[in-house]
Amino acid sequence: MFENKSKTTLESLGEFGLINHLADNFKETVQSTTIKAIGDDAAVININAKEAFVISTDMLVEGVHFDFMYSPLKHLGYKAITTNLSDIAAMNATPTQVLVSIAMSSKMTLEAVEELYIGIKSACDTYKVDLIGGDTANSRKGVCISVTAIGKALKKDILYRNGVKPTNLVCVTGDLGAAYTGYMLLEREKRIFLENPAVQPDMEGKDYILQRQLKPEARTDIKQLLADLKITPTAMIDISDGLSSELFHLADQSNVGFVIYEDKLPIDPVTYNVARELGLDPTTTALNGGEDYELLFTIPATDFDKIKNSLDFTVIGYATEPHEKLNLVSKSGNNYPLEAQGWQSFKQ
Amino acid sequence: MFENKSKTTLESLGEFGLINHLADNFKETVQSTTIKAIGDDAAVININAKEAFVISTDMLVEGVHFDFMYSPLKHLGYKAITTNLSDIAAMNATPTQVLVSIAMSSKMTLEAVEELYIGIKSACDTYKVDLIGGDTANSRKGVCISVTAIGKALKKDILYRNGVKPTNLVCVTGDLGAAYTGYMLLEREKRIFLENPAVQPDMEGKDYILQRQLKPEARTDIKQLLADLKITPTAMIDISDGLSSELFHLADQSNVGFVIYEDKLPIDPVTYNVARELGLDPTTTALNGGEDYELLFTIPATDFDKIKNSLDFTVIGYATEPHEKLNLVSKSGNNYPLEAQGWQSFKQ
Repeated sequence: MFENKSKTTLESLGEFGLINHLADNFKETVQSTTIKAIGDDAAVININAKEAFVISTDMLVEGVHFDFMYSPLKHLGYKAITTNLSDIAAMNATPTQVLVSIAMSSKMTLEAVEELYIGIKSACDTYKVDLIGGDTANSRKGVCISVTAIGKALKKDILYRNGVKPTNLVCVTGDLGAAYTGYMLLEREKRIFLENPAVQPDMEGKDYILQRQLKPEARTDIKQLLADLKITPTAMIDISDGLSSELFHLADQSNVGFVIYEDKLPIDPVTYNVARELGLDPTTTALNGGEDYELLFTIPATDFDKIKNSLDFTVIGYATEPHEKLNLVSKSGNNYPLEAQGWQSFKQ
Repeated sequence: MFENKSKTTLESLGEFGLINHLADNFKETVQSTTIKAIGDDAAVININAKEAFVISTDMLVEGVHFDFMYSPLKHLGYKAITTNLSDIAAMNATPTQVLVSIAMSSKMTLEAVEELYIGIKSACDTYKVDLIGGDTANSRKGVCISVTAIGKALKKDILYRNGVKPTNLVCVTGDLGAAYTGYMLLEREKRIFLENPAVQPDMEGKDYILQRQLKPEARTDIKQLLADLKITPTAMIDISDGLSSELFHLADQSNVGFVIYEDKLPIDPVTYNVARELGLDPTTTALNGGEDYELLFTIPATDFDKIKNSLDFTVIGYATEPHEKLNLVSKSGNNYPLEAQGWQSFKQ
């Protein structure tokens, strides 16, 4: 009923445009315990002089974020938790508790809900977090899951998006583009299945990218790995909407530019081969695919020797002065402006 | 696709049956900061020897919890916040922060979303809480709002559902049944409007019950009022699903019974008259209506003198031994067993 009042649709604005627009009204905070409100992977709430809680929330909607045609309920429950723990890891904090709310049809069976909660429980056990609350609501159509994750950290350890300095090195954990390639593979197999249910899906040797899409892990191990290397990043963010999109967040909040090297982007051979098979450019997939749930962080250039031989991290570029903007140096040595083509709600 | 595997539908189980069933798997907690997990109005997380955070989350679904035919967006935003702050008040804590996630169609206009956030901002300002995070997601159909509220309290002040002792007096704040009567009035006017759009709605003199339904407040003022009277309740819960339903929660968790007096139930004259006009029994409405967002609490019988003349509280009965179960003493002096007929998701 309120869809025709104006022409400013959310579609035209995009998710980040909407968030920025709305966040303007909530910049001033009144509670002394609020250290960081909107604008990072998680909010930060004061505990005492040394410690703080971090807290983050995300919503997953059926038909938008997951498809029951190929998302097993157990995996979906697992993923709902780990994607939220990823936000806590991105603050360099340790996750401690989660709350889970689910809206679902009253026609759904108890057994289906139990499957979902087996996945939730499995993730809670794996990451040693307590499920401490939530809500179950009726929905007329479709499933909607909202997870709130809480973590704890020493204040001096918490990493924000606004700490990047020009000359800092840009690092990523793990590899990129696998989850999106897995998604595109599942979508192709779904189309084939719908056209001809007798055809067996062609998934052999592709477990890695399917797991990355359907049952991603959160990099809560990185905090310790960095501590072991005696590296203190200057900024950190998790890669949920795609590397490019996250680089734009860091650039925006730290007032820097970036140079990224195409030949440094860590891409798993399975991702590379399946992307090619599906007609996708592996570099574009790594830059814009999203849902990797790896961590993107920056370190002082002087720390290069500490990280250069690590198998857990890849240095993919460096930060520049802001006027230099964001650029990709291709394998052939050419410069291309990066675009924030990450997955965005509302923009299709 | 998983709707036909079994006959155990959520409808047959009900929301509380489902929550109890699922909660069994999450009883053991591993984090030392988890003081109270599932099972109360809010979870409790340790800060230090003296203080704790309380945290609660709720989900509101279009077509189930609200209807855009008569829920103005501003009021809906306001209500989404206050209904969550009510859970914080029910722990006898002070709300400090909220996180808000909203799933909505990309066809929704920016202006509509802004209206919703004007209501959210208004509630944040009124209750002096900071909006510190959230998520905006695309939904294929309908609006779904998830709010997480955080509060703080001295541990010694936090009130749980399990502290009621036999002989304790049962008290409620404000009055009961108004929100449900307001809902039934709006539903009647909606039916009339749909049948004949030319008929003007008959709302005169009924502002109170409409406000109680569309723009409820949270009783965050009660903590101070009780402190002023030097009353320390033994247990507390907010009345969201109806007085009867909440009494059953207290009885279950405290292992007591209750005697409630019909003639003591606080019912506003407007509620009484409109309920009658709509063919509703005012007592049933007060017992089972739900969405009152008043507080239900118990106090030692020795505190009766402190509370008996207060205009803010009504003593409606007392706690008994558990084998006496839950009973209503009617105006004519007869005993009737109380039934937990409160609003429950999945049960229609």
